[in-house]
Amino acid sequence: MKSAKPYIEEHKQRFIDELIELLKIPSISADPAYKDDVFNTAEAVKDSLKKAGCDTVEICETPGYPIVYGEKTIDKNLPTVLVYGHYDVQPPDPMDLWNSPPFDPVIEKTEIHPNGAIFARGSCDDKGQMYMHVKALEYMTETNQLPCNVKFMIEGEEEVGSASLEWFVTRNREKLANDVILISDTGMIAKGTPSITTGLRGLSYVEVEVTGPNRDLHSGLYGGAVANPINILAKMIASLQDENNHITIPGFYDDVENLSEEERAKMAEAPFDKEAYKKAIGIGDVYGEAGYTTNERNSIRPTLDVNGIWGGYTGEGAKTVIPSKAYAKISMRLVPNQDWKKISQLFKDHFESIAPKAVTVEVKPHHGGQAYVTPIDNTGYKAASKAYEETFGKTPIPQRSGGSIPIVALFENELKSKTILMGFGLDTDAIHSPNEHFGIWNYLKGIETIPQFYHYFTEMSK
Amino acid sequence: MKSAKPYIEEHKQRFIDELIELLKIPSISADPAYKDDVFNTAEAVKDSLKKAGCDTVEICETPGYPIVYGEKTIDKNLPTVLVYGHYDVQPPDPMDLWNSPPFDPVIEKTEIHPNGAIFARGSCDDKGQMYMHVKALEYMTETNQLPCNVKFMIEGEEEVGSASLEWFVTRNREKLANDVILISDTGMIAKGTPSITTGLRGLSYVEVEVTGPNRDLHSGLYGGAVANPINILAKMIASLQDENNHITIPGFYDDVENLSEEERAKMAEAPFDKEAYKKAIGIGDVYGEAGYTTNERNSIRPTLDVNGIWGGYTGEGAKTVIPSKAYAKISMRLVPNQDWKKISQLFKDHFESIAPKAVTVEVKPHHGGQAYVTPIDNTGYKAASKAYEETFGKTPIPQRSGGSIPIVALFENELKSKTILMGFGLDTDAIHSPNEHFGIWNYLKGIETIPQFYHYFTEMSK
Repeated sequence: MKSAKPYIEEHKQRFIDELIELLKIPSISADPAYKDDVFNTAEAVKDSLKKAGCDTVEICETPGYPIVYGEKTIDKNLPTVLVYGHYDVQPPDPMDLWNSPPFDPVIEKTEIHPNGAIFARGSCDDKGQMYMHVKALEYMTETNQLPCNVKFMIEGEEEVGSASLEWFVTRNREKLANDVILISDTGMIAKGTPSITTGLRGLSYVEVEVTGPNRDLHSGLYGGAVANPINILAKMIASLQDENNHITIPGFYDDVENLSEEERAKMAEAPFDKEAYKKAIGIGDVYGEAGYTTNERNSIRPTLDVNGIWGGYTGEGAKTVIPSKAYAKISMRLVPNQDWKKISQLFKDHFESIAPKAVTVEVKPHHGGQAYVTPIDNTGYKAASKAYEETFGKTPIPQRSGGSIPIVALFENELKSKTILMGFGLDTDAIHSPNEHFGIWNYLKGIETIPQFYHYFTEMSK
Repeated sequence: MKSAKPYIEEHKQRFIDELIELLKIPSISADPAYKDDVFNTAEAVKDSLKKAGCDTVEICETPGYPIVYGEKTIDKNLPTVLVYGHYDVQPPDPMDLWNSPPFDPVIEKTEIHPNGAIFARGSCDDKGQMYMHVKALEYMTETNQLPCNVKFMIEGEEEVGSASLEWFVTRNREKLANDVILISDTGMIAKGTPSITTGLRGLSYVEVEVTGPNRDLHSGLYGGAVANPINILAKMIASLQDENNHITIPGFYDDVENLSEEERAKMAEAPFDKEAYKKAIGIGDVYGEAGYTTNERNSIRPTLDVNGIWGGYTGEGAKTVIPSKAYAKISMRLVPNQDWKKISQLFKDHFESIAPKAVTVEVKPHHGGQAYVTPIDNTGYKAASKAYEETFGKTPIPQRSGGSIPIVALFENELKSKTILMGFGLDTDAIHSPNEHFGIWNYLKGIETIPQFYHYFTEMSK
């Protein structure tokens, strides 16, 4: 297949402008206040797929936000690639830490992105990476080089647990039938070091509520005699990890996949500069489970993180109160073989069991997903590897990611096909953080690499 | 002195209406947004003192909110009573738990207040109790029965630590010269059981900030490898109390006054119904320091309570983030002999010392005050006791309160006079909580009892 470079060079300003328009819509799926924007984003994605050359495009209703489906079939006997992505984004807060409005994209040069990066919520996760596929399709159709069939399934609930995706997939197995699933919602090790994600962590997300007295109390009149739900919540959270940062929930590690020394040695070969890592996020030291390296802690080991906590008086000045309630949002990243529903139940049972009689505790499992590991000896992985060699001049490194794309396990079970994770973002792109950005070089490199995957996958499938 | 009952009966509707007008002004000293309301409340208090019969009334500027000063001198050779109170109130939040707007007073009957209670922020703490003194003065002047001189000092920063009061008192020793200080900012054991507060706890209020990474991070990509400031804050807070709920800060108990078995036995005589206590605040069990009763825990023992905590994502839905920062407001109630400045420093040193290298911690001491115990053999106490006997037909019980009125110790040092705490509120009045209220019976009983104090104090001082 011809290199897409000249076409990209000719159209790159438009490619950037189109993405910027998409980034202007605040499709925050977690916040009902943005409902209309989420729906409008689905419409915009539908139109872009139509323009890029799909014969069929539709907005598929679900119990939640709609899924945008697109399709271009050139020959039923040729392989079919199913592209998955999401058009919803994380909430932008804390707003005050953004250098520019999260939904008013700007292009700024950075040390890592000398050609500029687009700063906006969703620029990398996942509107930018999803849109690479739309533009790659445009290139292949415009130049009559599409070598196989392609289907798109772009959802709007990924950032809130893909609540409706299973519902949709199980009802549309025929429609979604494919030979390989292609997703760009992960990162690469470094600009000069392409990588293919072969493992993802699972997730169990829960919300806890601790209730003490039936109303806020004066901390002078009652202090010392009544359980303070914040103090109790802190004690309970603290007790979930021991001094080695092992998680103390009974049974939590029972199903954890333990890597062989060989596998760990192989992982250790991936380039990693601890000082640069510390400097990039401004920490005095790394911190985590005893006996594991930083790269192991954030990929092959499960975690327990409090993502949010609140209770009592949080305004200006001082208020001497014992609040009636305290709350926390807690998520656990899981590794292969850990079942997220089982872990959520273990958490609930344990957390409720350690609550003193002086308070009542409610644990609401939120959502979750299974971890995933893919072998590297299948056609999809090999085709992706060749594609990167073509455009980067280097063989990509297989890597385990600490992130979660719960639906990958779902696809394998329901659609019986492998998922290939071709990520073009960088860890420093600040996804889920203020000032999220996506390098223009990475964006265009993705558009250049994806068509090569179609080419090699079709070749190798013959 | 004649009973004030007939006069009160005749004017009670006006007494209630006047208080309700005062309660309508949201004088929240903790929140700068209410600055004008706080100043307007000072003006309203000034006018009420003028109307009640003071010859001199003035708004005294301070570095913070003004102090309202009023004075009526009938004879330099007669004793002088200095009345202290405050016109500022606690913030009303959580707003959604109020059954009626906090600054739109309503009168409702309750089980404990069959004659009705005024529901509004500040109704009991302290506008209502302060205003009893204004109306008591009105009675004594209108009926020409004021037996001695009286001075009023009503401040507007009590709920935020009386920041300017020391500044004012040390500059106005002459002006404030008195023979006894009278304060109604505490409670009584029960409607049928009058009590005089003889002990108050001190206070040390601090705010802590734990900083991890320099920006919010994706909990998948970084989870397990980076210290999460919320998890760390929870661990640090939890470590401040051991399994017996003893505070673990080195040196914290060094100066704590330990009561004799006799004193503890005497305290145990005060009527206390644990089941009713649990029922009133809806808790499954009491909770506190091992080896002490509920009444001891909330009066003669120091405490450590988290009054507010926040960090990460607290909005709707889920956000998988490791926040950059987590915060808590923490207050410690202190007992006689503990110096609040020393305790604040001990807390700061300890809290900073237990922080892991992976985070940075900042501790900001907010404000505080010393604990206080008053003997019961002085003229002021005896006069108050007689006054209660007159109006309640019962001898009041001396009681230690868990609350703090830091300025009481300040008065003793600077003005060399004893403070008498005649409180008419009930623990169930929900001060500092949603639905704060003050019984109309208690309000009028206070107005009836205060003049008797003036009478007996003057008599006994001869």
